[in-house]
Amino acid sequence: MLNIGPYSFHSRLMLGTGKYPDFDIQKQAVDVSGTEILTFSVRRMNIFEPSQPNFLEKIEVEKFKLLPNTAGASTAEEAVRIAKLAKASGLCDMIKVEVIGDAKTLLPDPVETLKATEELLAEGFIVLPYTSDDVLLAKRLQDLGVHAIMPGASPIGSGQGIINPLNLSFIIEQATVPVIVDAGIGTPSDAAIAMEMGADGVLLNTAVSGAKDPVKMAQAMKLGIEAGRLGYEAGRIPKKRYATASSPTEGLSTV
Amino acid sequence: MLNIGPYSFHSRLMLGTGKYPDFDIQKQAVDVSGTEILTFSVRRMNIFEPSQPNFLEKIEVEKFKLLPNTAGASTAEEAVRIAKLAKASGLCDMIKVEVIGDAKTLLPDPVETLKATEELLAEGFIVLPYTSDDVLLAKRLQDLGVHAIMPGASPIGSGQGIINPLNLSFIIEQATVPVIVDAGIGTPSDAAIAMEMGADGVLLNTAVSGAKDPVKMAQAMKLGIEAGRLGYEAGRIPKKRYATASSPTEGLSTV
Amino acid sequence: MLNIGPYSFHSRLMLGTGKYPDFDIQKQAVDVSGTEILTFSVRRMNIFEPSQPNFLEKIEVEKFKLLPNTAGASTAEEAVRIAKLAKASGLCDMIKVEVIGDAKTLLPDPVETLKATEELLAEGFIVLPYTSDDVLLAKRLQDLGVHAIMPGASPIGSGQGIINPLNLSFIIEQATVPVIVDAGIGTPSDAAIAMEMGADGVLLNTAVSGAKDPVKMAQAMKLGIEAGRLGYEAGRIPKKRYATASSPTEGLSTV
Amino acid sequence: MLNIGPYSFHSRLMLGTGKYPDFDIQKQAVDVSGTEILTFSVRRMNIFEPSQPNFLEKIEVEKFKLLPNTAGASTAEEAVRIAKLAKASGLCDMIKVEVIGDAKTLLPDPVETLKATEELLAEGFIVLPYTSDDVLLAKRLQDLGVHAIMPGASPIGSGQGIINPLNLSFIIEQATVPVIVDAGIGTPSDAAIAMEMGADGVLLNTAVSGAKDPVKMAQAMKLGIEAGRLGYEAGRIPKKRYATASSPTEGLSTV
Repeated sequence: MLNIGPYSFHSRLMLGTGKYPDFDIQKQAVDVSGTEILTFSVRRMNIFEPSQPNFLEKIEVEKFKLLPNTAGASTAEEAVRIAKLAKASGLCDMIKVEVIGDAKTLLPDPVETLKATEELLAEGFIVLPYTSDDVLLAKRLQDLGVHAIMPGASPIGSGQGIINPLNLSFIIEQATVPVIVDAGIGTPSDAAIAMEMGADGVLLNTAVSGAKDPVKMAQAMKLGIEAGRLGYEAGRIPKKRYATASSPTEGLSTV
Repeated sequence: MLNIGPYSFHSRLMLGTGKYPDFDIQKQAVDVSGTEILTFSVRRMNIFEPSQPNFLEKIEVEKFKLLPNTAGASTAEEAVRIAKLAKASGLCDMIKVEVIGDAKTLLPDPVETLKATEELLAEGFIVLPYTSDDVLLAKRLQDLGVHAIMPGASPIGSGQGIINPLNLSFIIEQATVPVIVDAGIGTPSDAAIAMEMGADGVLLNTAVSGAKDPVKMAQAMKLGIEAGRLGYEAGRIPKKRYATASSPTEGLSTV
Repeated sequence: MLNIGPYSFHSRLMLGTGKYPDFDIQKQAVDVSGTEILTFSVRRMNIFEPSQPNFLEKIEVEKFKLLPNTAGASTAEEAVRIAKLAKASGLCDMIKVEVIGDAKTLLPDPVETLKATEELLAEGFIVLPYTSDDVLLAKRLQDLGVHAIMPGASPIGSGQGIINPLNLSFIIEQATVPVIVDAGIGTPSDAAIAMEMGADGVLLNTAVSGAKDPVKMAQAMKLGIEAGRLGYEAGRIPKKRYATASSPTEGLSTV
Repeated sequence: MLNIGPYSFHSRLMLGTGKYPDFDIQKQAVDVSGTEILTFSVRRMNIFEPSQPNFLEKIEVEKFKLLPNTAGASTAEEAVRIAKLAKASGLCDMIKVEVIGDAKTLLPDPVETLKATEELLAEGFIVLPYTSDDVLLAKRLQDLGVHAIMPGASPIGSGQGIINPLNLSFIIEQATVPVIVDAGIGTPSDAAIAMEMGADGVLLNTAVSGAKDPVKMAQAMKLGIEAGRLGYEAGRIPKKRYATASSPTEGLSTV
């Protein structure tokens, strides 16, 4: 079970809802993924334009825990304002803090992320900050009392997978709250690697919504995460420089 | 479906039967893995010592296609002799040619592998040679008429995964018969990577039998292979240097 | 030329002075390395214990620019105090800010590093902060007005080389001040890679002082850095998936 | 010293002579590289068309040992014929056997390479075969009596560097003759890595001739190879997961 704040989840996949070819494909992808947590930009909730079509309409919202993010914020102040709007909808009390510092890399700003996180925790939110894989920054976020840490594997939507497994493993080692690998996952094997390292979950979006067949990829990601988690629990063989026979290679005397 | 010679398989996992803690764990691992092809050293068939306990007794042999290997052979002559013994048992007509050239790395000898393969094909065997990832060697084996090519990911039992994805991808590109990645797989993600690259299947043994919990790892491998295959079919997003927003980052005017 | 604050250097190597087998080997290593910048912990200056043997005695201090670091500090306050002690010696006005957040990984604390950097800049120091490869943190340090940025390649003394080339390349891309790769370099090729990526210099210590032959390794590092710099300036060929003949392969009609 | 057959060399770089912008740049690149061995396709010797301009004219041939290659051959027979032509010129007795099995990857054919090598050794040539990094194939070539083994790092002209360091290290471990890494080198650091692993030399062409500034890259490669060799001799520090302080981090009591 994945426990975040007061909530418990069977699935370890958090799925984004951006950029699917259409709402039907999105709905199917969400269904086969087995996810219990949907993430999306607060802006897409269309709180203030109820006349517009809304991606949430197509989804039986009550079946999922919603994890809105503060995408679009480049300061703590903006992030806090966006988070409060989300909460005001009455649909959610979890927030993914996302304060972007650079438009090209979409990497998070450490100082504003810390600030927004602190403030939102004080306001009683369940806070999951998106962060770089800076090990001490993750520690500081944890010390603030976050409910999960979300280090990026590589830039959002880049599909580059986990570039720095060392930092990620340090973050996991020191973690007292769940570690959700967020951003950069491209393939089921990327997701499996995160889970084999001991991550508690994976958040992804573009890898599914941008795949040639998003529904099939959603299923692949579900299996990849389960495979990785089981592999973590099963305890892998150590890596060795030289070979170890799996079949006996001596004593073929009877042949 | 994976088609090898006249046979068709739903599962893309070939599981070795060496070095499990005991026969019960082996049986359970085989069961949850969903494999339809069991591989083992001919010597372990104990054809000539029927009084000895035999790993095959614990397994309902008729449920599986058997793929004996010629482990222990260091020349084509030995491999051919071992293969004929296996066939004489009446239990199988497939053979995995394994001619080891070096005891430390257990890497295959290209010349003797070619020779043994040619001879066994002439004898009517269904031949799956274990080979290095030498691209032209794989081509030559294919030209001889093998029923599948089995390039190693890394040394047997080393758990190092796929060291040279370029060569493996070249082998897959040029292949007209199934490519089964054999040897070196350590984790479910390793298996998934092979499948995402377009391999037709994975053969493994130590990664399961040597795991702390072999039964759980067998299940993990099953899922990893399925995840990788689905991921291959689903069509991954391209890798990009810079980020691509999955949530809209502009136009937060209403906020 | 490498320009840091008001100073210009021909060499792009900054060499640490810790942990050599003895002072003579240290002196020889420093000499063959061609370095013009020596770095060391302020504490080793023995400012307050002039009766003790001092590593600086063995070195003709006037020939080098000294770059003391604040090793031992875990807060901005400590770092600032240590930096002031160094400056009070009258030997130097450059300081490498090093505020460690964790004893096991020796990775820097982002918040205290920012604080110490800001304060020391205000005090008129020439400040080179040691930082993680967090891209936005590097940007923030730059915006404070540092004279160079020193992202770590991997943990101090780990010899793991550059784990995240993407982040390092982003830092270099956005940099308006020199980028000196600091910590984690193990081999001449690691140093060369940093330079090929466009880094302005490399700081290392353990890779030389801990080598079996520190003097020879110092020379190797000098050459590696020069090779990498020249390679950067020369403009490498692009990586290609397929081959490109360097010798003509057709038209052998006369043969 | 690098010893190949009866010859000894101070430089560990073998430089190809194909595809430079012009003969003057080629000459300068050759000069600054410090190479003592030039390699080129036999066809470019223009033995039979003495009226044509010839790349050798621009080079003081007597200053170099010439290593013609059999590029253009796809069978042992062709390779042997080309090698004999080269020898008939009276300019050289060394030959690089290059039998390409595939036009797209330019990877060598193992069977024809073995055949050509055997025949040319019988004819008294000093033979250096270009081969894949198949470990047992390298062993077989060595057992035939070759004077050096030339495993490819990656496809010719691809600039991908050493893809499979494990296989290369196995080849070096088992070698009783010099190992020259051939093909695929893109950067000075690639060359340095080969040398740090214990290779005896590096052959390259496109990485220099195709660089934006071939002369500068030639110099960079010279330094990279020297750096790598010195690094190999100096004995690198071991890689460690965690950090090791280079500056003392405790006992700052006097501060």
